[in-house]
Amino acid sequence: MSRDETDDPDGSRGGRRRGGTPLLRDLGEFGVIELLRRRYGGAPLPGELAVGDDAAVVRIPRGRAVLSTDMLLSGTHFSLDYFLPGEVGWRALSANLSDLAAMGATPVCYLVALAAPGDTPVATVDGIFRGMARAADPSGMRLMGGDTCRGDRLVLCLTVVGALLRGRPVSRNGARPGDTLYVTGTPGWSNLGFRLLRGGRPPNATGWRREAMRRHLRPEARWREGMAAARSGAVSAMIDLSDGVLQDLAHLLERDGLGATLREEAFPLTPAFRTAAAALGIDPLAAFLAGGEDYELLMAVRPGRRGGFVRAARAFPAAATPIGEVTAEPGIRVRRRAGPVLEGAALPRGFAHFPPRRRR
Amino acid sequence: MSRDETDDPDGSRGGRRRGGTPLLRDLGEFGVIELLRRRYGGAPLPGELAVGDDAAVVRIPRGRAVLSTDMLLSGTHFSLDYFLPGEVGWRALSANLSDLAAMGATPVCYLVALAAPGDTPVATVDGIFRGMARAADPSGMRLMGGDTCRGDRLVLCLTVVGALLRGRPVSRNGARPGDTLYVTGTPGWSNLGFRLLRGGRPPNATGWRREAMRRHLRPEARWREGMAAARSGAVSAMIDLSDGVLQDLAHLLERDGLGATLREEAFPLTPAFRTAAAALGIDPLAAFLAGGEDYELLMAVRPGRRGGFVRAARAFPAAATPIGEVTAEPGIRVRRRAGPVLEGAALPRGFAHFPPRRRR
Repeated sequence: MSRDETDDPDGSRGGRRRGGTPLLRDLGEFGVIELLRRRYGGAPLPGELAVGDDAAVVRIPRGRAVLSTDMLLSGTHFSLDYFLPGEVGWRALSANLSDLAAMGATPVCYLVALAAPGDTPVATVDGIFRGMARAADPSGMRLMGGDTCRGDRLVLCLTVVGALLRGRPVSRNGARPGDTLYVTGTPGWSNLGFRLLRGGRPPNATGWRREAMRRHLRPEARWREGMAAARSGAVSAMIDLSDGVLQDLAHLLERDGLGATLREEAFPLTPAFRTAAAALGIDPLAAFLAGGEDYELLMAVRPGRRGGFVRAARAFPAAATPIGEVTAEPGIRVRRRAGPVLEGAALPRGFAHFPPRRRR
Repeated sequence: MSRDETDDPDGSRGGRRRGGTPLLRDLGEFGVIELLRRRYGGAPLPGELAVGDDAAVVRIPRGRAVLSTDMLLSGTHFSLDYFLPGEVGWRALSANLSDLAAMGATPVCYLVALAAPGDTPVATVDGIFRGMARAADPSGMRLMGGDTCRGDRLVLCLTVVGALLRGRPVSRNGARPGDTLYVTGTPGWSNLGFRLLRGGRPPNATGWRREAMRRHLRPEARWREGMAAARSGAVSAMIDLSDGVLQDLAHLLERDGLGATLREEAFPLTPAFRTAAAALGIDPLAAFLAGGEDYELLMAVRPGRRGGFVRAARAFPAAATPIGEVTAEPGIRVRRRAGPVLEGAALPRGFAHFPPRRRR
């Protein structure tokens, strides 16, 4: 099912099997740090310093660092009754890497501050760090520092660092009327996965069940797509989808006082997606527009640059689909295949299943 | 007494006065973020992006970032029954800035992730951020990003970013036998302050009481000293004193397998310090050697470079005192003014009053 279950015969399912397994307090804090450093610590380049000093020293190509930090609390943002430790780590790292992707940044490194009770199994913490390392590895991001302390519950704070190899960062604002809106992949899968899992984790899932679970438990940050999009010079604004298409689109439009018209017929809703939504009793349009935690990218592309963007997007592993246009008229409208145009209160609302998190 | 009490007539003493004061949940998370951004958000330089996008973009002069992250939990690392919000913020920022100082880095910016219960007074969070801003301001560090979320207790995770303007970072290792050990300021004051405060915060403190409280509640990170020391090229190894002279000296020596001999007669124990220790019933030698949370710097200086170091140290606001030498023989020995040489179990032990925190 998920890689952690097949690859981890040592049973690092925190909060479930504690008999006889070593706990954080058995190893001591120095012991835990040494173990994590040895297993997951990044290799320093010449002139760099990794885990183990007062601070890490990291080379930032071309001298502009892209920085994001996120805190995750057990019980609020995740639960080890529901996620495997590796999934907690994977999701946390991917959500942060997605923030770098949305700026068009090249991933460089991450730092992890962790608080945990003394009776946490070492395997739980190890599983979380392994999940982070696996999600980070393809992008070349390295664990370069952190902090561990005792606390009465598990708290994870990730800081990710990227670099801007050229040009300007792609920010949330800068879209203009007439820009085409593209999304990568198929937003909504993560929400379908959540709804499936809420009914209990199905054993040996296949087909749409497997896909929905994977997209919820192991979302893939679109850092390749973000970098290529920024490089194309065609993208006027970009944001990652953590709160759902409509809500994140509103963030992208709000500071410029713009609106958008989306066309349902253009939405990349695959047959598998529709099957999944039907089986789960959810309107596929609502899942697409209002599901969150997909970590896909939403981009506004200049009309005169669409050709360059389309060429760049051919290399996107997750593809990119035009779903509508930016308008001077504020508000978001969804033109249905049949029936009325949806807007305002008629639009699907968020499905947030954890209390909403906001970033600054 | 402390600046927060005199400068903040609005009464931002979190956890004490809640009647009628606005709470986080009244303002909403967007409202809190907007308030913090407006009041404390750093001004972006050309090519930078501050608070408000998927990630911050920060210029790193010369392309090497120095990074440190630290998590502080209410109840474990601080208590609002004991510290004012401004002091929590000041101490947290200073402890992190001290990590940059210990690398010889130039402070650049900080990011703050915060979790807090919905019934936290807005003034408490505002006070914490004001304390951080005040501790950061002299160094030019700016708040460039962060994260806020709901949690059942207050958790603060700071990430600080510096730059290396030239040469190599000064790490914890690199000391050699014969190097002279220098400390800035007078380590031990913070512990005296803690012991004084443990008996209740004295009103209108003057003299040594005022000094001890200030050093515990508003420690000053030695970023100027760290930068000048690194620039002098004379410092072979450096660490900041968070766990006490002996324990941090051990960290500085351990990876090179070295030892040290310290001379009591050289210790910068002022008459006020001795008076304070006597009044609190503490051995001043023990307070100096084993008190923690001073955030002074400990440096090893090459014998052939002492002249250059002494010239550089003239500009140190906190001065620097030679307290002993690095030895090839492992272990730390303290040569008393009278009586036996202290070593091993005879050395004073740590006074840690919060559970020890370790950094990677």
